[in-house]
Amino acid sequence: MSKTSWSAICWRNVSLSLLDQRRLPAEEVWLELTSAQDVADAIRDMVVRGAPAIGITAAYGVVLGAINQKGQQKWYGMVVRDIEQLAASRPTAVNLFWALERMKTVLDNARDEASPPVAALIEEARLIHEEDCANNQRMSALALSTMQHMSGEDPFSVMTHCNTGALATGGHGTALGIIKAGASCGMIEHVHVNETRPWMQGARLTSWELSRENIPLSLNVESAAALIMSKGNVKWLIVGADRIAANGDVANKIGTYTLAIAARYHGVKVMVAAPLSSFDLTIQSGGDIPVEERAGEEIMYQGNTRIAPENINAFNPVFDITPAALIDVIVTEKGVIAQPTQDNIKNHVRV
Amino acid sequence: MSKTSWSAICWRNVSLSLLDQRRLPAEEVWLELTSAQDVADAIRDMVVRGAPAIGITAAYGVVLGAINQKGQQKWYGMVVRDIEQLAASRPTAVNLFWALERMKTVLDNARDEASPPVAALIEEARLIHEEDCANNQRMSALALSTMQHMSGEDPFSVMTHCNTGALATGGHGTALGIIKAGASCGMIEHVHVNETRPWMQGARLTSWELSRENIPLSLNVESAAALIMSKGNVKWLIVGADRIAANGDVANKIGTYTLAIAARYHGVKVMVAAPLSSFDLTIQSGGDIPVEERAGEEIMYQGNTRIAPENINAFNPVFDITPAALIDVIVTEKGVIAQPTQDNIKNHVRV
Repeated sequence: MSKTSWSAICWRNVSLSLLDQRRLPAEEVWLELTSAQDVADAIRDMVVRGAPAIGITAAYGVVLGAINQKGQQKWYGMVVRDIEQLAASRPTAVNLFWALERMKTVLDNARDEASPPVAALIEEARLIHEEDCANNQRMSALALSTMQHMSGEDPFSVMTHCNTGALATGGHGTALGIIKAGASCGMIEHVHVNETRPWMQGARLTSWELSRENIPLSLNVESAAALIMSKGNVKWLIVGADRIAANGDVANKIGTYTLAIAARYHGVKVMVAAPLSSFDLTIQSGGDIPVEERAGEEIMYQGNTRIAPENINAFNPVFDITPAALIDVIVTEKGVIAQPTQDNIKNHVRV
Repeated sequence: MSKTSWSAICWRNVSLSLLDQRRLPAEEVWLELTSAQDVADAIRDMVVRGAPAIGITAAYGVVLGAINQKGQQKWYGMVVRDIEQLAASRPTAVNLFWALERMKTVLDNARDEASPPVAALIEEARLIHEEDCANNQRMSALALSTMQHMSGEDPFSVMTHCNTGALATGGHGTALGIIKAGASCGMIEHVHVNETRPWMQGARLTSWELSRENIPLSLNVESAAALIMSKGNVKWLIVGADRIAANGDVANKIGTYTLAIAARYHGVKVMVAAPLSSFDLTIQSGGDIPVEERAGEEIMYQGNTRIAPENINAFNPVFDITPAALIDVIVTEKGVIAQPTQDNIKNHVRV
């Protein structure tokens, strides 16, 4: 298994360093956390974001909890309480609960011992972290092979939306990991980065990740996407997923659906990159995925300055649903699903 | 001819009042201008924006220049110099030069008289202003009739982009004028207002115009457009135009093309509202319309705060080109062009 790539989550044996994503790209500030409570606070306060990254961070939080209980007689109950606190830090990311469950299994195996199983917990947290990176690397390799097969030998440009890179995962990234790998091997010559209103993850985070690897990029407002697709050498729109329904409909950051329609109109292929844990086969189609709406105020202010009139309404959905029919390929750590349908997704995920 | 609607441009007999659009919607500040130089500065500094509004404002600027030369022997040369200053205030808006030419004709007719023809100039400026309002009202009536014919009796929602209302014209507006008229007669039940990155004319100006007339609206990021079209009762996307080529391709605010593609995908009809002066039959197709690009910095800051990393590139086009094939109707003051083509545009504009 490959070791971790560059990560915004660094285990330091007795502490956890987290790159504070709220302050990027203006400042690269690392926070040093020494307790499970610190970690729960950091997740709640969005120091770290992105479902896989949240799961990994929480796993290290359990390790810190165990370290702080060394020599304590009632260590088990205390660490279980830490796990409950960590689970309460964010409600949505399924990876959080999945990672905490893995950590609790290790804890339970040592329940009758005198001291918490610190070494075993460190091992498990590292494994969760490394597996995520390895899954991302596998997705990259599978995606590059697919793009070469479908788009030929000449270098091309791609467009991406939101942030799906090292910052959102254990390292490397899903969609952005593929883009970074494609750029480093010369397949991808330029990346069009959508700024990603209203939270600007593209402008703030994706631009930052690409620029520190010297990958040619240009930032644009989402509105310019169709113009760029009509003029440029754009062959692929590559995005992540927050949840994938049984029929292949994809919930992802607001704007993905608009972009996928523009892509289809221009013959630009659409690739969704997501680990198997993003599939939710209990949900039949995208229409049943709940779409989170946030407060309208988020789009009525720039910083602290109100730009919209008082007393108007705003509609501020966080996600939209891209129908499977607009998606050319879904890439997971296990392989590539071309033209996703209920049948080929079922075969891919379950077998 | 109808009198002017509510206008951000008010002639006060010896001065011109302009609503300072830079400060909307936070403050409604009216500037009182008493010289042609004041007016040239106001146009240059974006107190007023929108091609028709700029032309009308400049015409009143000539009046102020003439008033200030009353009793002066060399009044003609001085007012001509004022006209030159006004013409140099903004380079793009063709209405500016067209309006100044009309004013100069009136001036020239009185060249040998002892005093500048103030009354005749006031009359001409008022006419330019009133004609613009009347054209907009005619467009509204024609558009409502078309929409009723094509979309039936039940109230529906519309989406618009940027600001094409009273603020951008002599009053009432082009696309937004149609929307306001449709809302006031109960045909339109809700307006989806795109915020219009990066300058936020939708959030700042269109929301303000609609809310002061109590028209139901919701603000959204451009990225949410496809989601809104897929869920809502949206029947029309109604936009303005900055230039229309001989084949019906339309240059308009960046994002219009992306929206038109999403509209076609959802069966939402696309209406472009523009006066005849927006047609440029010397340009064969949209590909030949120059698309202005502005500095990348405009999308790298929120207010004074830089949000993107240093040393990256940005692509910041102001306009895009929507191909005629995606446009269902173009409405002018003269009538409705359904499914625009080179032939029906030529017949409409020239005959």
